[in-house]
Amino acid sequence: MNFKEIIEHVYHKVKNVEDTGKLPTYIPQLANVDTENFGVYISTTDQVNFGIGNCYDKFSIQSIAKVLSLSLAYQLLGEKVWERVGVEPSGTPFNSLVQLETDNGIPRNPFINAGAIVISDILVSSLKNPKEDFLTFVRSICNNSDLNYSSRIAASEKEIGFRNVALCNFIKSFGNIKNDPSEVLEFYFDLCSIEMNCKELSETFLFLANNGQNVIDNTTILSSSQTKRINALMLTCGFYDESGDFAFKVGLPGKSGVGGGIIAIHPNHYAIAVWSPKLNQKGNSYKGMRFLEEFTTKSELSIF
Amino acid sequence: MNFKEIIEHVYHKVKNVEDTGKLPTYIPQLANVDTENFGVYISTTDQVNFGIGNCYDKFSIQSIAKVLSLSLAYQLLGEKVWERVGVEPSGTPFNSLVQLETDNGIPRNPFINAGAIVISDILVSSLKNPKEDFLTFVRSICNNSDLNYSSRIAASEKEIGFRNVALCNFIKSFGNIKNDPSEVLEFYFDLCSIEMNCKELSETFLFLANNGQNVIDNTTILSSSQTKRINALMLTCGFYDESGDFAFKVGLPGKSGVGGGIIAIHPNHYAIAVWSPKLNQKGNSYKGMRFLEEFTTKSELSIF
Amino acid sequence: MNFKEIIEHVYHKVKNVEDTGKLPTYIPQLANVDTENFGVYISTTDQVNFGIGNCYDKFSIQSIAKVLSLSLAYQLLGEKVWERVGVEPSGTPFNSLVQLETDNGIPRNPFINAGAIVISDILVSSLKNPKEDFLTFVRSICNNSDLNYSSRIAASEKEIGFRNVALCNFIKSFGNIKNDPSEVLEFYFDLCSIEMNCKELSETFLFLANNGQNVIDNTTILSSSQTKRINALMLTCGFYDESGDFAFKVGLPGKSGVGGGIIAIHPNHYAIAVWSPKLNQKGNSYKGMRFLEEFTTKSELSIF
Amino acid sequence: MNFKEIIEHVYHKVKNVEDTGKLPTYIPQLANVDTENFGVYISTTDQVNFGIGNCYDKFSIQSIAKVLSLSLAYQLLGEKVWERVGVEPSGTPFNSLVQLETDNGIPRNPFINAGAIVISDILVSSLKNPKEDFLTFVRSICNNSDLNYSSRIAASEKEIGFRNVALCNFIKSFGNIKNDPSEVLEFYFDLCSIEMNCKELSETFLFLANNGQNVIDNTTILSSSQTKRINALMLTCGFYDESGDFAFKVGLPGKSGVGGGIIAIHPNHYAIAVWSPKLNQKGNSYKGMRFLEEFTTKSELSIF
Repeated sequence: MNFKEIIEHVYHKVKNVEDTGKLPTYIPQLANVDTENFGVYISTTDQVNFGIGNCYDKFSIQSIAKVLSLSLAYQLLGEKVWERVGVEPSGTPFNSLVQLETDNGIPRNPFINAGAIVISDILVSSLKNPKEDFLTFVRSICNNSDLNYSSRIAASEKEIGFRNVALCNFIKSFGNIKNDPSEVLEFYFDLCSIEMNCKELSETFLFLANNGQNVIDNTTILSSSQTKRINALMLTCGFYDESGDFAFKVGLPGKSGVGGGIIAIHPNHYAIAVWSPKLNQKGNSYKGMRFLEEFTTKSELSIF
Repeated sequence: MNFKEIIEHVYHKVKNVEDTGKLPTYIPQLANVDTENFGVYISTTDQVNFGIGNCYDKFSIQSIAKVLSLSLAYQLLGEKVWERVGVEPSGTPFNSLVQLETDNGIPRNPFINAGAIVISDILVSSLKNPKEDFLTFVRSICNNSDLNYSSRIAASEKEIGFRNVALCNFIKSFGNIKNDPSEVLEFYFDLCSIEMNCKELSETFLFLANNGQNVIDNTTILSSSQTKRINALMLTCGFYDESGDFAFKVGLPGKSGVGGGIIAIHPNHYAIAVWSPKLNQKGNSYKGMRFLEEFTTKSELSIF
Repeated sequence: MNFKEIIEHVYHKVKNVEDTGKLPTYIPQLANVDTENFGVYISTTDQVNFGIGNCYDKFSIQSIAKVLSLSLAYQLLGEKVWERVGVEPSGTPFNSLVQLETDNGIPRNPFINAGAIVISDILVSSLKNPKEDFLTFVRSICNNSDLNYSSRIAASEKEIGFRNVALCNFIKSFGNIKNDPSEVLEFYFDLCSIEMNCKELSETFLFLANNGQNVIDNTTILSSSQTKRINALMLTCGFYDESGDFAFKVGLPGKSGVGGGIIAIHPNHYAIAVWSPKLNQKGNSYKGMRFLEEFTTKSELSIF
Repeated sequence: MNFKEIIEHVYHKVKNVEDTGKLPTYIPQLANVDTENFGVYISTTDQVNFGIGNCYDKFSIQSIAKVLSLSLAYQLLGEKVWERVGVEPSGTPFNSLVQLETDNGIPRNPFINAGAIVISDILVSSLKNPKEDFLTFVRSICNNSDLNYSSRIAASEKEIGFRNVALCNFIKSFGNIKNDPSEVLEFYFDLCSIEMNCKELSETFLFLANNGQNVIDNTTILSSSQTKRINALMLTCGFYDESGDFAFKVGLPGKSGVGGGIIAIHPNHYAIAVWSPKLNQKGNSYKGMRFLEEFTTKSELSIF
């Protein structure tokens, strides 16, 4: 079977599975999404593309954007990034403050909220117009000038983002935030609000399956070594305290967002984006996880 | 460059690096090893083999044996194993008791001591003659009847293994140890005492690079899916709270032991064993980590 | 109203309160006690005594004995005791291992299990015949040669005492247990098994209300300063993570045991013992707590 | 010896002790204080008063004000206060966020920062003009219209109060802060900035030694039972993770502030204020602790 057949087969199978997930109630704007949405899109390094279901409907990519902000910071600062944030799985939920207290304000990795806030601080320091420049970066790697923030979603999160305000100020108290916390958080909430559909998401992330190069125009976004390292980080840390389980069952580097999206990378082969809004207990898309598990089982392809 | 040339090149480079590691002082018998020892051996799925340095000198494989005990338990019980132990990185040192208290005695993964003790309990329950049967299993996958426990090392660890006695009894207090703790620990200390040289180590682990099959006689040790899962676990959890760093820098599933050995697996390609006794702060071989980092950089091969 | 009248009044009131507590199921021998038992006995420094209910029925004093072992160790070693155990409330349950890991094996105080086990180790080192000598000490301060251990209770606890075995070995791994863990635990389980009735319990503890002196024969058990310090410790640490609540509601130094007994001290005035077997969620006697709260409210006497 | 003689004796003894403490560097305005300052003032319920040293020099009472805000909240809401904050020692430093995560945003007690911020939120909700009304309350119990906030100190703390911003927003994320975090913190920083000298401090707190009644005009500030409970809380929680040690060595309810002040209460007898700016490792006045320890030893008076 080829990818198209496998995706169709698994899509229809998982579509009918009972979805025991729940919408995230804490972000009002995400709680209103139609729970029936379910889309998949694959983009391969040899430029085969295929989508199914709601793969052209936009959704909030949320934490998936943390990989993009890290990529830009890594491009700008190189290995110096790791002086401010670690590369280890945290073993705790995405928004935990506990480890920061023992680790003196150095977040365990760039994909938990604490780490992504530190990366945001780096970008606020490094970019002239952080909000515009970051969007330009994302549009360029996706070859798509249509991508944008959702001010509605960003505003919704700002209103209830007390935990993130706490995280940012807590890290600031250790000296690992250099800018004004409110400025850093403004940028952080914006970046999490980017909207994409599955097609755009898989196309945006394809460079991570292509040794850091844009498949369309061959420009270099990250070096081969940097790309491998980001993939490694997604594998060990991309799903919070369900990262081990994702590596175990799916066997690909990936990243999830509370908007129900998941991106997964098969190095040298493809990027695949899945979207279904209801989340399991760990905050990852219920059907998205199921789809990817069955997809890698069926295709007998994983990095392991 | 082929493997042989890369290994020779990197070996000589790392051999001369200043070794800032330290021998583990808490196990008396391990503290007496010659710190100059440094060996490497690679075994590929297409039966190319090459060794250098002290690759024929035996050492105590220690925690590396946890992958072998897990493999046997997985072969015997299948997915039921995961009812007793998790698959998530712990984010804490190898011998921590803290998470057990919040996780009700279910260790985070089978490679921290707590998890390996639960796996030992499973084997004590499942095997007629645990000590003999486990050795038979290891000898068979290595096609080598010469392998054995070191009663001297096992005795040395029993004498000072208070932390492991604590772990085992703590888990027992939650009901997740079924046998007498002293019997479980007896088996646990034995299995950690197995001695191998780099050649034997890489040959023993080659089945994990070969979809679960013995390269020599084609017998099936684990299913393809089980093999991928063990590789995933080694990647996310094989190096305690340095697992993320190993994935990041080396990019291969692997497992280290306090005896200074490291095994790393490139699925479908090879198993490589490195040994150098001095350990970095996280308890992993200093030169072993360095060698593997440079080896995968030089060979431009990693799973990412 | 005098003590007798207040005690009678409060006793009858609390006797009829619905007891929402539960017997501790984890020690088989304690799970068989008649839950209707409810006794109170007061002994004053001016030798007024009064008891009511089941005040002459023996019960297992359990953790209350930790005050007696600490008293003997304090008598023998003086302030050197505090090099091995702290004087701070733990903020965690009685049998937690978590803090030991960050505190390098120094228990927070002598009344959590970890601390009492360290005190037991001190006594095993300091006494010729620990078991006999400790009993002699307790008998002498109670002027009662009838007191004894319950081998039945001690055996019952040894059988299921895995958590305490874990604690003792964990502390040993930090070097803060000097003797063989099994010898220390043997003594620890014995001392917790001492049986007394409310009358004996209040008489045994009366020296703590009498500046360290035996009321009957005026012998000095502890100095005035040492006595104050033990009273302070009982106030801040006597009820595990319910210590603040007991200070808040009852306002007296005290110590509870999982057998349902509580002793409370009003310095310079009296010692009062209460016994009722069903325990609240924190492991302290439900009716015992209620009785003492109403007793100090009614008598308008507390140290605050 | 009477109080005057004891105080003079101990004052001169401790004045010459080498002060190994350090000024708190994190609040710039507190780092500029003359470290030679050392004052003591006692006020008794039978209206004996005596002061020595810098007892008429004002200093920032800082966390000592938490007892006053709690007193006012307790007066206004009664036992309902305890639905929002606990009464247990925390076993952790004053500004820890860790326990809030496991305790769902309910601070362990009203004297750690988290708890005092919740009490501030209660007052912001309950008072018409929180800042003015609270000052009126403090002036009334001290019978002194001279007391005031220091806008200089408050501003200094606001500038660097990231940890408290984190705490407040973290608690808000659990729903246990009802007002806008910035409004609550504004009030919190103001209340901590109140300045008093030792005389004023001991007079302000004398009602806690007098069953809740103002010694001058006999007005009731708190009921007798409420007063005992606040004293109990000071004893178990007044000195963060040095509370046990203070109870152990000094044996009185008390509260310290990072400005170097300490107030201690002997119920039915006196309130005593000590001030010396250099702090020990736990953040309590080095000489203040020493003075009170020797004072209660010498006077042979403690609640135990």
